[in-house]
Amino acid sequence: MTTTLRAVDVIARKRDGGEVPTADLRAFVIAYAAGELPDYQMAAFLMAGYLRGFTRREAETLTEAMVASGDRLDLGRLRGPTVDKHSTGGVADGTTLVVGPLSAALGLQMVKLSGRGLGHTGGTLDKLEAIPGFRVALGAEELLDQVERIGLAVAAQTADLVPADKAIYALRDVTATVGNVALIASSVMSKKLAGGAGCILLDVKAGSGAFMRETAAAVELARLCVDLGRAGGRRTAALVTDMDQPLGELVGNAVEVREAVEVLRGERRGRFLDLCLTLTGHLAALAGVAADPGQGRRDAARALDAGEGLERFRDFVAAQGGDPRVADDPSLLPQAPVALEVRAPAGGWLQAVDTEAVGQVAAALGAGRQRKDDEIDPAVAVELDAKLGDRVDAGQPVGRILARDEHAARTAASGLLAALRWSDRPSQAPPLVHEVVGA
Amino acid sequence: MTTTLRAVDVIARKRDGGEVPTADLRAFVIAYAAGELPDYQMAAFLMAGYLRGFTRREAETLTEAMVASGDRLDLGRLRGPTVDKHSTGGVADGTTLVVGPLSAALGLQMVKLSGRGLGHTGGTLDKLEAIPGFRVALGAEELLDQVERIGLAVAAQTADLVPADKAIYALRDVTATVGNVALIASSVMSKKLAGGAGCILLDVKAGSGAFMRETAAAVELARLCVDLGRAGGRRTAALVTDMDQPLGELVGNAVEVREAVEVLRGERRGRFLDLCLTLTGHLAALAGVAADPGQGRRDAARALDAGEGLERFRDFVAAQGGDPRVADDPSLLPQAPVALEVRAPAGGWLQAVDTEAVGQVAAALGAGRQRKDDEIDPAVAVELDAKLGDRVDAGQPVGRILARDEHAARTAASGLLAALRWSDRPSQAPPLVHEVVGA
Repeated sequence: MTTTLRAVDVIARKRDGGEVPTADLRAFVIAYAAGELPDYQMAAFLMAGYLRGFTRREAETLTEAMVASGDRLDLGRLRGPTVDKHSTGGVADGTTLVVGPLSAALGLQMVKLSGRGLGHTGGTLDKLEAIPGFRVALGAEELLDQVERIGLAVAAQTADLVPADKAIYALRDVTATVGNVALIASSVMSKKLAGGAGCILLDVKAGSGAFMRETAAAVELARLCVDLGRAGGRRTAALVTDMDQPLGELVGNAVEVREAVEVLRGERRGRFLDLCLTLTGHLAALAGVAADPGQGRRDAARALDAGEGLERFRDFVAAQGGDPRVADDPSLLPQAPVALEVRAPAGGWLQAVDTEAVGQVAAALGAGRQRKDDEIDPAVAVELDAKLGDRVDAGQPVGRILARDEHAARTAASGLLAALRWSDRPSQAPPLVHEVVGA
Repeated sequence: MTTTLRAVDVIARKRDGGEVPTADLRAFVIAYAAGELPDYQMAAFLMAGYLRGFTRREAETLTEAMVASGDRLDLGRLRGPTVDKHSTGGVADGTTLVVGPLSAALGLQMVKLSGRGLGHTGGTLDKLEAIPGFRVALGAEELLDQVERIGLAVAAQTADLVPADKAIYALRDVTATVGNVALIASSVMSKKLAGGAGCILLDVKAGSGAFMRETAAAVELARLCVDLGRAGGRRTAALVTDMDQPLGELVGNAVEVREAVEVLRGERRGRFLDLCLTLTGHLAALAGVAADPGQGRRDAARALDAGEGLERFRDFVAAQGGDPRVADDPSLLPQAPVALEVRAPAGGWLQAVDTEAVGQVAAALGAGRQRKDDEIDPAVAVELDAKLGDRVDAGQPVGRILARDEHAARTAASGLLAALRWSDRPSQAPPLVHEVVGA
């Protein structure tokens, strides 16, 4: 991409609905990451692709070029099967905190580079940092040593990993080109491929709290992600799972660690545990330590019941500098000073949850960020006990707000109630897993 | 446009095929011209509009906002009817040099702000600067004084006039968003509206040497330009004219001045003169000094025959510091040292001319620019005497190259021949005027 002319040709080709030749597209992305192609040319290209679409081959090239733009994590020295999992982002979606330890208990080696929360979705790093002392900045050597030793590490993605994705994502955000399946898939998969794991499992969320509202769109994204993972030489599968209500019952940071600990201790059952077992089962099958996802799930349940997941969680927290006693006493986690019960204003069946709104209520309390440099309050939270299809009576508690002060708590309580829609007739709860792709 | 959010909304609206509300679109353009909106957001918007199209109302708003982004020329003190004409760019298209003096002879006041040539098309300023001493940088007062006195001035557009167009045009050039009818029309018409004339005549070229290859596309552009001119409160009309071959016989700078002088002296007839008379006739009708374009054309022909056009040309050249003796002795214009006859390699009828290629041959000789800061050689030229439909014998001259050296001349001669397609059967010459819009 030495001349302006060729960049214009790439843009014009996409604008006219053609497929950009692989070498040209690769050079275009690499030049952009190197600061040799101006933002405005990438912006025009992204909009052309948003409207004209990208072919599967273009999505592969975008992904591969973004990976090539930076460093890759080399997991060559790890002996066990290396695995990674990624959720496209949801509310009360702390599966990594349970799936990681259970996977480690099954002999898998999970190396997870993670991000922070933005908007209504929480971030794994933010949740882990609610544990006193927990460190997410690990060097590559430290990361690999830890995985070798205990089978699990979760660290912050460094700036050297897939810099093209970072730059392109920031540009998409301000040019109305976020919502394109090929751009989303290449962004997700470039990071997973650069992360180096041999097996990749995607949890693509669909519903009112997900980026993809429609299941069909989530399935399309899941399929393309699986294609891109396989094109990158990895064993890849994806689940499309429900985000029409929060996955767990607790939305926040410290509370999501608590929920994970309670699950690992066998004290809490439900949808969140259900999905964690399913995801671990798929990872085990992908990695070849279980014959199929069903067998993997049964293995994961056995490891849970035997307390092996909790043990690995304890090791994991300790290895990254956190206080391992939280695994036995979650009250060591930060606590919010104010708790306010939220009660149903009238009786009825819970028919719909505006899950994004629930996430925003938690974020407004301080559990999330509106801007990248906002500070997180680890203690505040929204608890929603009622599930879709549940019947409640007027005045019965449906959840709880954990806040810094009374005023914030009352505002959040109204916000939570406004996100719930009640019906005088029973309605069916959605399935937890809509579709399995590539297993 | 104080927040990023609203700019993204404007882009998203256009991306989804909606009409951007007038106030938002106006603010978007004004913010861009003021440097408050980044190039990448404008680039994404332009690509969205390129692919989704702009409504007529959006085109009007774009035009109006671009005009509002800078200064306007105030022609209020001029008493006669003020006129402006604009060609979308062609080869051997020096009509301003004849239409300006003839219009002045009919009592019109032509105030023309003009541009320079780029690529295969020549620019009026470059042609005029071939006249020894000619100045194109006129201040507003000087410009108006001259028009008041002699009815004609042609000056370089200043940076303060329609800065938004300048910025957007530069961006379109590098983002593959040039070829959109609304963007072209708003670019053309914003400059014409800011130029202040009460009557505007567009000469939209169609054919192998024009930006618009297809007549239908040229007609669409002409219609939108007329709409935009009228929305801006001006009497506006447009002709769609042939550019399937060079308009005149001489392609260059000094030679086009010579051709204009010969036409004004009554020594040269043909398509170029024909179009000059037609354009002048339309201007006279628009301005109300002739009952209709036909009457205007007859008046123009009478002024030409009476030598009044030549007299106005002489005054015009002198007023802008040029040597007025070129009106009587064109040999005072720069002369190229080498002249090379170009002969038909075989007999036949001239069936097609790649007019853009002819323009590029002249540009390669030095008559035009590949880049904005290239120097022009005023003396070099391509002469093409053969017209579409002409029968020539093998070895008969079809044109001539005027060059700096023999090598350049030979290269240009091959280039000229390669641009001509011959047939062994007669073919029809295209009409000079394809369509009249708004007269």
